[in-house]
Amino acid sequence: MFITFEGPDGSGKTTQIRILASTLIEAGFSVVVTREPGGTAIGDQIRNVLHDTANTAMSSVAEVLLYSASRAQLVEEIIRPALADGRIVLCDRYADSTMAYQGFGRGLDRGMLADLTAYATGGLKPDLTIYLDLDVSDGLARRRNEGEEMNRLDLEAVHFHERVRGGYRLLAAADPGRWITVDADRPAGEVATEIRDIVLHRLSVSR
Amino acid sequence: MFITFEGPDGSGKTTQIRILASTLIEAGFSVVVTREPGGTAIGDQIRNVLHDTANTAMSSVAEVLLYSASRAQLVEEIIRPALADGRIVLCDRYADSTMAYQGFGRGLDRGMLADLTAYATGGLKPDLTIYLDLDVSDGLARRRNEGEEMNRLDLEAVHFHERVRGGYRLLAAADPGRWITVDADRPAGEVATEIRDIVLHRLSVSR
Repeated sequence: MFITFEGPDGSGKTTQIRILASTLIEAGFSVVVTREPGGTAIGDQIRNVLHDTANTAMSSVAEVLLYSASRAQLVEEIIRPALADGRIVLCDRYADSTMAYQGFGRGLDRGMLADLTAYATGGLKPDLTIYLDLDVSDGLARRRNEGEEMNRLDLEAVHFHERVRGGYRLLAAADPGRWITVDADRPAGEVATEIRDIVLHRLSVSR
Repeated sequence: MFITFEGPDGSGKTTQIRILASTLIEAGFSVVVTREPGGTAIGDQIRNVLHDTANTAMSSVAEVLLYSASRAQLVEEIIRPALADGRIVLCDRYADSTMAYQGFGRGLDRGMLADLTAYATGGLKPDLTIYLDLDVSDGLARRRNEGEEMNRLDLEAVHFHERVRGGYRLLAAADPGRWITVDADRPAGEVATEIRDIVLHRLSVSR
Protein backbone atom coordinates (compact mmCIF):
# COMPACT_ATOMS: atom_id res chain seq x y z
CA MET A 1 0.00 0.00 0.00
CA PHE A 2 1.28 3.40 -1.08
CA ILE A 3 0.13 6.21 1.25
CA THR A 4 0.96 9.87 0.65
CA PHE A 5 0.61 12.85 2.97
CA GLU A 6 -0.34 16.23 1.56
CA GLY A 7 -0.97 19.68 3.01
CA PRO A 8 0.95 22.86 3.73
CA ASP A 9 4.30 22.99 5.49
CA GLY A 10 3.45 23.41 9.17
CA SER A 11 0.45 21.08 9.04
CA GLY A 12 2.29 18.32 10.87
CA LYS A 13 2.90 15.85 8.03
CA THR A 14 6.34 14.84 9.27
CA THR A 15 5.12 14.22 12.83
CA GLN A 16 2.07 12.28 11.65
CA ILE A 17 4.12 10.10 9.32
CA ARG A 18 6.52 9.26 12.14
CA ILE A 19 3.66 8.29 14.47
CA LEU A 20 1.86 6.24 11.79
CA ALA A 21 5.09 4.45 10.85
CA SER A 22 5.60 3.40 14.49
CA THR A 23 1.99 2.23 14.77
CA LEU A 24 2.26 0.16 11.59
CA ILE A 25 5.60 -1.35 12.56
CA GLU A 26 4.15 -2.33 15.97
CA ALA A 27 1.23 -3.92 14.09
CA GLY A 28 3.74 -6.08 12.22
CA PHE A 29 3.96 -4.29 8.88
CA SER A 30 7.15 -3.50 7.04
CA VAL A 31 7.24 0.24 6.39
CA VAL A 32 9.32 2.59 4.23
CA VAL A 33 9.17 6.31 5.03
CA THR A 34 10.30 8.79 2.41
CA ARG A 35 9.71 12.34 1.24
CA GLU A 36 9.57 14.70 -1.72
CA PRO A 37 11.49 16.42 -3.07
CA GLY A 38 14.40 14.22 -2.08
CA GLY A 39 14.28 10.75 -0.60
CA THR A 40 17.32 9.63 -2.63
CA ALA A 41 20.88 10.97 -2.90
CA ILE A 42 20.09 12.46 -6.32
CA GLY A 43 16.73 13.75 -5.12
CA ASP A 44 18.36 15.47 -2.16
CA GLN A 45 20.70 17.31 -4.53
CA ILE A 46 17.63 18.43 -6.51
CA ARG A 47 15.90 19.41 -3.25
CA ASN A 48 18.80 21.73 -2.43
CA VAL A 49 18.37 23.52 -5.77
CA LEU A 50 14.61 23.86 -5.20
CA HIS A 51 14.85 25.13 -1.62
CA ASP A 52 17.81 27.49 -2.08
CA THR A 53 16.41 30.94 -1.20
CA ALA A 54 19.01 32.50 -3.54
CA ASN A 55 17.23 30.93 -6.54
CA THR A 56 14.54 33.62 -6.83
CA ALA A 57 14.96 33.73 -10.63
CA MET A 58 13.72 30.13 -11.06
CA SER A 59 11.17 29.83 -13.88
CA SER A 60 7.94 28.01 -12.97
CA VAL A 61 8.54 25.48 -15.74
CA ALA A 62 12.07 24.73 -14.50
CA GLU A 63 10.65 24.34 -11.00
CA VAL A 64 8.04 21.77 -11.99
CA LEU A 65 10.59 19.84 -14.06
CA LEU A 66 12.92 19.67 -11.04
CA TYR A 67 10.13 18.35 -8.79
CA SER A 68 9.31 15.80 -11.49
CA ALA A 69 12.95 14.72 -11.80
CA SER A 70 13.19 14.13 -8.05
CA ARG A 71 9.91 12.18 -8.21
CA ALA A 72 11.06 10.00 -11.13
CA GLN A 73 14.19 9.06 -9.21
CA LEU A 74 12.24 8.32 -6.01
CA VAL A 75 9.69 6.11 -7.78
CA GLU A 76 12.34 4.06 -9.57
CA GLU A 77 14.87 3.79 -6.76
CA ILE A 78 12.68 3.53 -3.64
CA ILE A 79 8.90 3.34 -4.05
CA ARG A 80 8.44 0.67 -6.74
CA PRO A 81 10.99 -1.75 -5.23
CA ALA A 82 9.44 -1.32 -1.76
CA LEU A 83 5.89 -1.95 -3.03
CA ALA A 84 7.14 -4.97 -4.99
CA ASP A 85 8.52 -6.32 -1.68
CA GLY A 86 5.08 -5.94 -0.07
CA ARG A 87 6.07 -3.04 2.16
CA ILE A 88 3.90 -0.05 3.06
CA VAL A 89 5.32 3.19 1.66
CA LEU A 90 4.58 6.46 3.51
CA CYS A 91 5.58 9.46 1.43
CA ASP A 92 5.70 13.07 2.63
CA ARG A 93 4.30 14.84 -0.49
CA TYR A 94 3.94 13.34 -3.98
CA ALA A 95 2.46 14.31 -7.35
CA ASP A 96 -0.58 16.03 -5.80
CA SER A 97 1.80 18.66 -4.42
CA THR A 98 2.78 19.53 -7.99
CA MET A 99 -0.85 19.87 -9.00
CA ALA A 100 -1.66 21.98 -5.91
CA TYR A 101 1.42 24.24 -5.84
CA GLN A 102 2.41 24.55 -9.50
CA GLY A 103 -1.01 23.94 -11.07
CA PHE A 104 -3.40 25.78 -8.75
CA GLY A 105 -0.79 27.97 -7.00
CA ARG A 106 1.24 29.13 -9.99
CA GLY A 107 -1.37 28.61 -12.66
CA LEU A 108 0.57 26.18 -14.86
CA ASP A 109 -1.47 24.14 -17.33
CA ARG A 110 -2.94 21.26 -15.31
CA GLY A 111 -3.38 18.93 -18.28
CA MET A 112 0.32 19.28 -19.08
CA LEU A 113 1.19 18.69 -15.40
CA ALA A 114 -0.89 15.51 -15.40
CA ASP A 115 0.97 14.27 -18.52
CA LEU A 116 4.32 15.18 -17.00
CA THR A 117 3.48 13.40 -13.74
CA ALA A 118 2.34 10.29 -15.57
CA TYR A 119 5.68 10.31 -17.41
CA ALA A 120 7.78 10.90 -14.28
CA THR A 121 6.01 8.24 -12.20
CA GLY A 122 5.27 5.70 -14.92
CA GLY A 123 1.63 6.12 -13.85
CA LEU A 124 2.13 5.12 -10.20
CA LYS A 125 -0.65 6.64 -8.03
CA PRO A 126 -1.12 6.45 -4.26
CA ASP A 127 -3.67 4.04 -2.82
CA LEU A 128 -4.50 6.54 -0.09
CA THR A 129 -3.75 10.24 0.31
CA ILE A 130 -4.10 11.89 3.70
CA TYR A 131 -4.62 15.62 3.38
CA LEU A 132 -3.82 17.63 6.51
CA ASP A 133 -6.00 20.68 6.11
CA LEU A 134 -5.02 23.90 7.88
CA ASP A 135 -5.70 27.63 7.58
CA VAL A 136 -2.93 29.29 5.57
CA SER A 137 -2.10 31.77 8.32
CA ASP A 138 -2.02 28.99 10.95
CA GLY A 139 0.42 26.96 8.85
CA LEU A 140 2.84 29.84 8.32
CA ALA A 141 2.61 30.87 11.98
CA ARG A 142 3.40 27.33 13.11
CA ARG A 143 6.50 27.27 10.91
CA ARG A 144 7.72 30.54 12.38
CA ASN A 145 6.93 29.58 15.99
CA GLU A 146 8.78 26.31 15.64
CA GLY A 147 11.84 28.22 14.44
CA GLU A 148 11.80 26.34 11.13
CA GLU A 149 14.06 27.88 8.54
CA MET A 150 11.90 29.52 5.85
CA ASN A 151 12.43 27.98 2.40
CA ARG A 152 11.82 29.52 -1.03
CA LEU A 153 8.14 28.54 -1.12
CA ASP A 154 7.41 29.85 2.39
CA LEU A 155 8.31 33.28 1.07
CA GLU A 156 5.44 33.27 -1.45
CA ALA A 157 2.54 35.62 -0.78
CA VAL A 158 -0.39 34.45 1.33
CA HIS A 159 -2.76 34.44 -1.67
CA PHE A 160 -0.48 31.91 -3.37
CA HIS A 161 -0.94 29.57 -0.41
CA GLU A 162 -4.71 30.24 -0.47
CA ARG A 163 -4.85 29.06 -4.10
CA VAL A 164 -2.86 25.97 -3.12
CA ARG A 165 -5.35 25.16 -0.38
CA GLY A 166 -8.26 25.63 -2.76
CA GLY A 167 -6.54 23.29 -5.20
CA TYR A 168 -6.06 20.59 -2.58
CA ARG A 169 -9.73 20.76 -1.65
CA LEU A 170 -10.80 20.39 -5.28
CA LEU A 171 -8.46 17.43 -5.80
CA ALA A 172 -9.78 15.76 -2.64
CA ALA A 173 -13.40 16.33 -3.66
CA ALA A 174 -12.77 14.92 -7.14
CA ASP A 175 -11.42 11.56 -5.90
CA PRO A 176 -12.99 10.77 -2.51
CA GLY A 177 -12.02 7.09 -2.75
CA ARG A 178 -8.34 8.00 -2.52
CA TRP A 179 -8.33 11.21 -0.47
CA ILE A 180 -9.03 11.57 3.25
CA THR A 181 -9.18 15.15 4.55
CA VAL A 182 -8.11 15.50 8.17
CA ASP A 183 -8.52 18.69 10.19
CA ALA A 184 -4.95 19.47 11.26
CA ASP A 185 -5.89 22.30 13.62
CA ARG A 186 -6.01 19.94 16.62
CA PRO A 187 -3.48 18.39 19.00
CA ALA A 188 -1.13 16.01 17.18
CA GLY A 189 -2.35 13.03 19.25
CA GLU A 190 -5.96 13.50 18.15
CA VAL A 191 -4.94 13.80 14.50
CA ALA A 192 -2.76 10.69 14.85
CA THR A 193 -5.63 8.64 16.26
CA GLU A 194 -7.89 9.58 13.37
CA ILE A 195 -5.22 8.69 10.81
CA ARG A 196 -4.41 5.40 12.56
CA ASP A 197 -8.05 4.31 12.52
CA ILE A 198 -8.45 5.18 8.83
CA VAL A 199 -5.29 3.39 7.74
CA LEU A 200 -5.82 0.26 9.85
CA HIS A 201 -9.36 0.04 8.50
CA ARG A 202 -8.10 0.29 4.92
CA LEU A 203 -5.44 -2.33 5.56
CA SER A 204 -7.94 -4.77 7.10
CA VAL A 205 -10.32 -4.27 4.16
CA SER A 206 -7.60 -4.77 1.56
CA ARG A 207 -6.36 -8.01 3.09
CA MET B 1 19.24 34.56 -34.85
CA PHE B 2 19.47 31.53 -32.56
CA ILE B 3 22.33 29.18 -33.50
CA THR B 4 23.02 25.91 -31.69
CA PHE B 5 26.05 23.64 -31.84
CA GLU B 6 25.61 19.89 -31.59
CA GLY B 7 27.92 16.91 -31.67
CA PRO B 8 29.87 14.70 -29.26
CA ASP B 9 32.09 16.05 -26.50
CA GLY B 10 35.54 16.33 -28.05
CA SER B 11 34.24 17.53 -31.44
CA GLY B 12 35.41 21.09 -30.80
CA LYS B 13 32.07 22.82 -30.15
CA THR B 14 33.47 25.10 -27.45
CA THR B 15 36.44 26.20 -29.60
CA GLN B 16 34.27 26.77 -32.67
CA ILE B 17 31.72 28.81 -30.71
CA ARG B 18 34.50 31.01 -29.32
CA ILE B 19 35.93 31.63 -32.79
CA LEU B 20 32.51 32.30 -34.36
CA ALA B 21 31.59 34.68 -31.54
CA SER B 22 34.78 36.72 -32.17
CA THR B 23 34.09 36.78 -35.90
CA LEU B 24 30.52 37.97 -35.41
CA ILE B 25 31.49 40.62 -32.86
CA GLU B 26 34.16 41.93 -35.27
CA ALA B 27 31.47 42.06 -37.96
CA GLY B 28 29.44 44.31 -35.68
CA PHE B 29 26.89 41.90 -34.25
CA SER B 30 25.90 41.68 -30.61
CA VAL B 31 26.44 38.09 -29.47
CA VAL B 32 25.46 36.00 -26.44
CA VAL B 33 27.32 32.75 -25.87
CA THR B 34 25.79 30.15 -23.57
CA ARG B 35 25.69 26.41 -23.00
CA GLU B 36 23.64 23.45 -21.86
CA PRO B 37 23.19 22.13 -19.31
CA GLY B 38 23.90 25.27 -17.34
CA GLY B 39 24.22 28.81 -18.64
CA THR B 40 22.45 30.23 -15.57
CA ALA B 41 23.17 30.01 -11.83
CA ILE B 42 20.29 27.55 -11.41
CA GLY B 43 21.28 25.64 -14.54
CA ASP B 44 24.83 25.27 -13.28
CA GLN B 45 23.53 23.71 -10.06
CA ILE B 46 21.53 21.27 -12.22
CA ARG B 47 24.61 20.62 -14.39
CA ASN B 48 26.54 19.58 -11.29
CA VAL B 49 23.89 16.97 -10.45
CA LEU B 50 23.92 15.67 -14.04
CA HIS B 51 27.71 15.46 -14.35
CA ASP B 52 28.47 14.07 -10.88
CA THR B 53 30.12 10.70 -11.55
CA ALA B 54 28.80 9.48 -8.17
CA ASN B 55 25.21 9.63 -9.52
CA THR B 56 25.34 6.27 -11.29
CA ALA B 57 21.86 5.36 -9.98
CA MET B 58 20.17 8.17 -11.94
CA SER B 59 17.04 6.99 -13.75
CA SER B 60 16.84 7.91 -17.45
CA VAL B 61 13.56 9.73 -16.85
CA ALA B 62 15.05 11.80 -14.00
CA GLU B 63 17.99 12.59 -16.26
CA VAL B 64 15.87 13.93 -19.11
CA LEU B 65 13.76 15.97 -16.71
CA LEU B 66 16.91 17.57 -15.27
CA TYR B 67 18.18 18.51 -18.74
CA SER B 68 14.74 19.93 -19.51
CA ALA B 69 14.69 21.95 -16.28
CA SER B 70 18.07 23.50 -17.08
CA ARG B 71 16.80 24.27 -20.61
CA ALA B 72 13.59 25.90 -19.38
CA GLN B 73 15.59 28.19 -17.11
CA LEU B 74 18.06 29.07 -19.87
CA VAL B 75 15.34 29.90 -22.40
CA GLU B 76 13.45 32.13 -19.98
CA GLU B 77 16.40 33.86 -18.33
CA ILE B 78 18.91 34.20 -21.20
CA ILE B 79 17.87 33.14 -24.71
CA ARG B 80 14.45 34.79 -25.15
CA PRO B 81 15.53 38.16 -23.70
CA ALA B 82 18.68 38.17 -25.88
CA LEU B 83 16.73 37.36 -29.06
CA ALA B 84 14.17 40.03 -28.17
CA ASP B 85 17.07 42.50 -27.95
CA GLY B 86 18.16 41.54 -31.50
CA ARG B 87 21.28 39.70 -30.38
CA ILE B 88 22.70 36.53 -31.91
CA VAL B 89 22.62 33.61 -29.45
CA LEU B 90 25.22 30.85 -29.79
CA CYS B 91 24.35 27.87 -27.62
CA ASP B 92 26.60 24.88 -26.91
CA ARG B 93 23.98 22.05 -27.08
CA TYR B 94 20.20 22.44 -26.93
CA ALA B 95 17.09 20.27 -27.30
CA ASP B 96 18.59 18.16 -30.11
CA SER B 97 21.06 16.80 -27.55
CA THR B 98 18.13 15.41 -25.57
CA MET B 99 16.72 13.75 -28.67
CA ALA B 100 20.14 12.32 -29.65
CA TYR B 101 21.37 11.20 -26.21
CA GLN B 102 18.18 10.31 -24.35
CA GLY B 103 15.99 9.44 -27.34
CA PHE B 104 18.36 7.60 -29.69
CA GLY B 105 21.08 6.81 -27.10
CA ARG B 106 18.95 5.61 -24.19
CA GLY B 107 15.87 4.63 -26.16
CA LEU B 108 13.36 6.91 -24.40
CA ASP B 109 10.10 7.57 -26.24
CA ARG B 110 10.91 10.28 -28.80
CA GLY B 111 7.33 11.54 -29.08
CA MET B 112 7.26 12.14 -25.33
CA LEU B 113 10.67 13.85 -25.52
CA ALA B 114 9.37 16.16 -28.25
CA ASP B 115 6.37 17.10 -26.08
CA LEU B 116 8.59 17.64 -23.05
CA THR B 117 10.98 19.84 -25.04
CA ALA B 118 8.13 21.90 -26.45
CA TYR B 119 6.92 22.43 -22.88
CA ALA B 120 10.38 23.30 -21.49
CA THR B 121 11.24 25.73 -24.29
CA GLY B 122 7.79 27.17 -24.99
CA GLY B 123 8.35 25.96 -28.55
CA LEU B 124 11.56 27.92 -29.19
CA LYS B 125 13.62 26.24 -31.94
CA PRO B 126 17.05 27.21 -33.31
CA ASP B 127 17.24 29.02 -36.66
CA LEU B 128 20.44 27.15 -37.46
CA THR B 129 22.06 24.06 -35.94
CA ILE B 130 25.70 23.31 -36.68
CA TYR B 131 26.47 19.63 -36.18
CA LEU B 132 30.14 18.80 -35.67
CA ASP B 133 30.35 15.22 -36.89
CA LEU B 134 33.15 13.01 -35.61
CA ASP B 135 33.88 9.29 -35.26
CA VAL B 136 32.96 8.09 -31.78
CA SER B 137 36.42 6.74 -31.05
CA ASP B 138 38.06 9.98 -32.26
CA GLY B 139 35.86 12.08 -29.96
CA LEU B 140 36.61 10.02 -26.88
CA ALA B 141 40.32 9.91 -27.70
CA ARG B 142 40.44 13.69 -28.08
CA ARG B 143 38.84 14.14 -24.67
CA ARG B 144 41.41 11.85 -23.07
CA ASN B 145 44.37 13.40 -24.88
CA GLU B 146 43.33 16.89 -23.84
CA GLY B 147 43.27 15.75 -20.21
CA GLU B 148 39.57 16.63 -19.92
CA GLU B 149 37.96 15.23 -16.82
CA MET B 150 35.61 12.40 -17.83
CA ASN B 151 31.97 13.11 -16.90
CA ARG B 152 29.13 10.67 -16.27
CA LEU B 153 28.17 10.44 -19.96
CA ASP B 154 31.75 9.87 -21.16
CA LEU B 155 31.70 6.66 -19.18
CA GLU B 156 28.90 5.18 -21.28
CA ALA B 157 29.79 2.32 -23.59
CA VAL B 158 30.94 3.04 -27.14
CA HIS B 159 27.75 1.58 -28.65
CA PHE B 160 25.73 4.18 -26.73
CA HIS B 161 27.75 6.94 -28.42
CA GLU B 162 27.30 5.18 -31.79
CA ARG B 163 23.52 5.31 -31.35
CA VAL B 164 23.78 9.00 -30.46
CA ARG B 165 25.72 9.69 -33.66
CA GLY B 166 23.18 7.77 -35.74
CA GLY B 167 20.44 9.85 -34.10
CA TYR B 168 22.16 13.13 -34.91
CA ARG B 169 22.50 12.09 -38.54
CA LEU B 170 18.82 11.20 -38.79
CA LEU B 171 17.79 14.51 -37.19
CA ALA B 172 20.03 16.46 -39.58
CA ALA B 173 18.68 14.58 -42.61
CA ALA B 174 15.08 15.20 -41.53
CA ASP B 175 15.44 19.01 -41.37
CA PRO B 176 18.15 20.11 -43.85
CA GLY B 177 16.94 23.71 -43.78
CA ARG B 178 18.00 24.04 -40.14
CA TRP B 179 20.91 21.58 -39.84
CA ILE B 180 24.39 21.99 -41.29
CA THR B 181 26.69 18.98 -40.88
CA VAL B 182 30.37 19.88 -40.62
CA ASP B 183 33.19 17.32 -40.71
CA ALA B 184 34.98 17.94 -37.41
CA ASP B 185 37.91 15.63 -38.17
CA ARG B 186 40.01 18.52 -39.57
CA PRO B 187 42.17 21.30 -38.12
CA ALA B 188 40.09 23.76 -36.06
CA GLY B 189 40.95 26.64 -38.43
CA GLU B 190 39.46 24.86 -41.44
CA VAL B 191 36.29 23.98 -39.56
CA ALA B 192 36.00 27.58 -38.32
CA THR B 193 36.27 28.96 -41.88
CA GLU B 194 33.48 26.70 -43.10
CA ILE B 195 31.23 27.68 -40.19
CA ARG B 196 31.99 31.38 -40.62
CA ASP B 197 31.05 31.28 -44.32
CA ILE B 198 27.79 29.45 -43.62
CA VAL B 199 26.73 31.77 -40.81
CA LEU B 200 27.66 35.02 -42.56
CA HIS B 201 25.77 33.84 -45.65
CA ARG B 202 22.68 33.08 -43.56
CA LEU B 203 22.89 36.45 -41.84
CA SER B 204 23.20 38.33 -45.14
CA VAL B 205 20.23 36.41 -46.57
CA SER B 206 18.07 37.03 -43.54
CA ARG B 207 18.65 40.79 -43.52
